[in-house]
Amino acid sequence: MTKIAICGYGNLGRGVESAAMLSPDIEVTGVFTRRDPTGVRTATGLPVYSLSELDAHAGEIDVLVICAGSATDLPEMTPKLADRFNVIDSFDTHAHIPEHFASVDKAAKSGGKLALISAGWDPGLFSLNRLYASAILPEGETYTFWGKGVSQGHSDAIRRIDGVLDARQYTIPIDKALDAVRSGSQPELSTREKHQRECFVVAEEGADLARIEREIKTMPNYFDEYDTTVHFISAEEMARDHSGLPHGGFVIRSGRTGLSREHNETIEYSLKLDSNPEFTACVLVACARAVDRMVRRGRTGCVTVFDIAPADLSPLDGETIRKTLL
Amino acid sequence: MTKIAICGYGNLGRGVESAAMLSPDIEVTGVFTRRDPTGVRTATGLPVYSLSELDAHAGEIDVLVICAGSATDLPEMTPKLADRFNVIDSFDTHAHIPEHFASVDKAAKSGGKLALISAGWDPGLFSLNRLYASAILPEGETYTFWGKGVSQGHSDAIRRIDGVLDARQYTIPIDKALDAVRSGSQPELSTREKHQRECFVVAEEGADLARIEREIKTMPNYFDEYDTTVHFISAEEMARDHSGLPHGGFVIRSGRTGLSREHNETIEYSLKLDSNPEFTACVLVACARAVDRMVRRGRTGCVTVFDIAPADLSPLDGETIRKTLL
Repeated sequence: MTKIAICGYGNLGRGVESAAMLSPDIEVTGVFTRRDPTGVRTATGLPVYSLSELDAHAGEIDVLVICAGSATDLPEMTPKLADRFNVIDSFDTHAHIPEHFASVDKAAKSGGKLALISAGWDPGLFSLNRLYASAILPEGETYTFWGKGVSQGHSDAIRRIDGVLDARQYTIPIDKALDAVRSGSQPELSTREKHQRECFVVAEEGADLARIEREIKTMPNYFDEYDTTVHFISAEEMARDHSGLPHGGFVIRSGRTGLSREHNETIEYSLKLDSNPEFTACVLVACARAVDRMVRRGRTGCVTVFDIAPADLSPLDGETIRKTLL
Repeated sequence: MTKIAICGYGNLGRGVESAAMLSPDIEVTGVFTRRDPTGVRTATGLPVYSLSELDAHAGEIDVLVICAGSATDLPEMTPKLADRFNVIDSFDTHAHIPEHFASVDKAAKSGGKLALISAGWDPGLFSLNRLYASAILPEGETYTFWGKGVSQGHSDAIRRIDGVLDARQYTIPIDKALDAVRSGSQPELSTREKHQRECFVVAEEGADLARIEREIKTMPNYFDEYDTTVHFISAEEMARDHSGLPHGGFVIRSGRTGLSREHNETIEYSLKLDSNPEFTACVLVACARAVDRMVRRGRTGCVTVFDIAPADLSPLDGETIRKTLL
C-alpha cells in the first residue's frame, strides 16, 4: 500500500483524488491546501488540512503529490518540500526543467528523499516516447503535435483582453502536416503548418468585436504565428459546449534503416483525452507507486520519468507482467 | 563504447549489423555462425567466426546479441550462453516466456552475467506500451493489432502445402475494429473481427488451385478463424511485389477516468515498418547499450524491457535528455 497526500486541490488535485480510487494499492491520506481548510470540501470526503500542518502528518505520507502551477508555485514549493517528503510534481515549463531539476535534486539529497519532477503526459509520456523512439531510430526526426484540446494558457491570454468575459482556445494539429510526417518524408514544418488555433469568446455587450478579434490574432507568441479562427458565442453556449478540458496529441518519429537508409520506419504515439487533468493525475498516481518502490530500494535525489523502470509503475509483480503483458 | 557481437547471421543478424552503423557508440566486433564461417560474407566486412570459437573472443564482447529462431534455437542457445556472456535475445513465443525467463535467469546468475530476453517490438515496444497504458488507466481494455505486414509463420505454413512453390501472407488489421476501439466503447472483438489474412501463392504448374485455396482457408489455428483471401501469382510477380518484410501494428488502451467513470481516455501506439528485421534489430542495439550500462552497475540475472530505465537506452547523458527530450 502506498499512502499519498495531495498538496493543492484544483483540477489536478481533484483528478488525483479520483485517479487513486482506480488503484486499490494507493490510499490518499489527506489533502493539504493553502486556503482555509474549513472552506474546502473534497469530492470523496477526504480530510482537508492546512498546508502549514503538513509536517505533523509526515508519518501518513509515503509520497506527496504536489498539484500546483508551474509558472510560480512549483519552482518554489517542490524544492521547499523535497527535503522532508518524497514528492512528485508535474512541472511543465520545458525551458526551465534543468534549473528546476537542480534545485529539487539538491533539496532531496540533503534530506535523503526522492523527488520526481515533470510527470504527466507532456512532459511525461510524450517525453518517454521521444526518448524511446530516438534511441531506437537514431537517424530520423521526431515531431510533437498537440490537440485537439483546450490550452489553458491561451484561453487565459484571451481573457485578459479588454471586453472579453470568457474564452476557450483549442489547439488543433493540422492533418496535412500529420500526413506529411507519416509519409516518411521528414518534412520541415513551420509553426503555422503544424497547428491552428480556434477561439470561442464571450464578449461584453457592446464590445468592439472586430478589435477583440484583431487583438487575439496579432498577439505575439500566442497567436501571431498561427492561423487563428475566432467565434463569438453567448455565455450559455460556452457553458453548454465548452465546459470540458479535452486534450491530446501525437509524438511521431520518422526514421530510416538499412545499409543505404532505404527503409522508412515510423513510430507514432497518440493520446485522445476527454479530461486532461484527470489523465495527468492518472500518470501522477502510477508514478507515486514507482517512487514509493524506488524509495524502499534506497534511491534519493531528483529523477524524471526517464529514470523509472516501467515495471515499477505497475501494481502487478514481475512474474505477472512477464506472463500477461510481455 | 559498447562492443557487441552478433550470434547468427540471418535477416535479424544483418539488421543488427546495419543498425549498429547508426550508433557511433556501438561497435560490432564480430559475427558468430553455426555455418562454416568461410562461406559467410557480411555486408560491411565484419569478421566471421565459428560459434565454437566464441569463448576465445570473450574479451571483445560486452554484449552478445543472439539472432536466432524462437521455436527451437533460442530456448537452448540463450541459457547455454548466458553464464559466460551478457546476452540479448528476441524470444517471441509469448506463451513460453516464463519458462525461458527462468532458465536464462538461472544461467545468468550462476555466471554473474546479465541477460535481456524478448526484446524487439512484440514482445518489446508493444509490451512496454501495454504496461505503461494499463498502469496509467487501470480501468480499461488493451487491444493489440498486427499489420499490415508479412507473417513469416503463416507464409511458411502455406509453403508446406502440396503444390505450393512460394507464398507470402499479410496480416491486416480491420479498420472497423480499430475505429470501434478508438471510439471508447471497449468492444469485445472476435478473432475474425480484428484481423484478416491475405495470401499470395505461387503454385506448381498444373496444381489444383481450388484444393490449395481450400487447404489454406481451413488450416486450423493459422487461417480457419479468419476471413482469408488467396491470390495465385507468378514467381516473377512474387519477386517484384512481395520481396520486402514490412510489418507494424497498434496497441490501443481505452480507459475511463472520473468519479463516475464519465471520461474516455485513449492511448494509442503504432508502428509502420518497411523492414521488420531491421527495426527489430534497432531495438536490440539500443537494448545492448542499456544492458552494458546495467552490467557496469553490477546488475545480474535475467531482465526484460520492463526492467530497463528508459534513460539507459539513449546514447545521450541524463542532463542532455532532460534538456532536449523531456
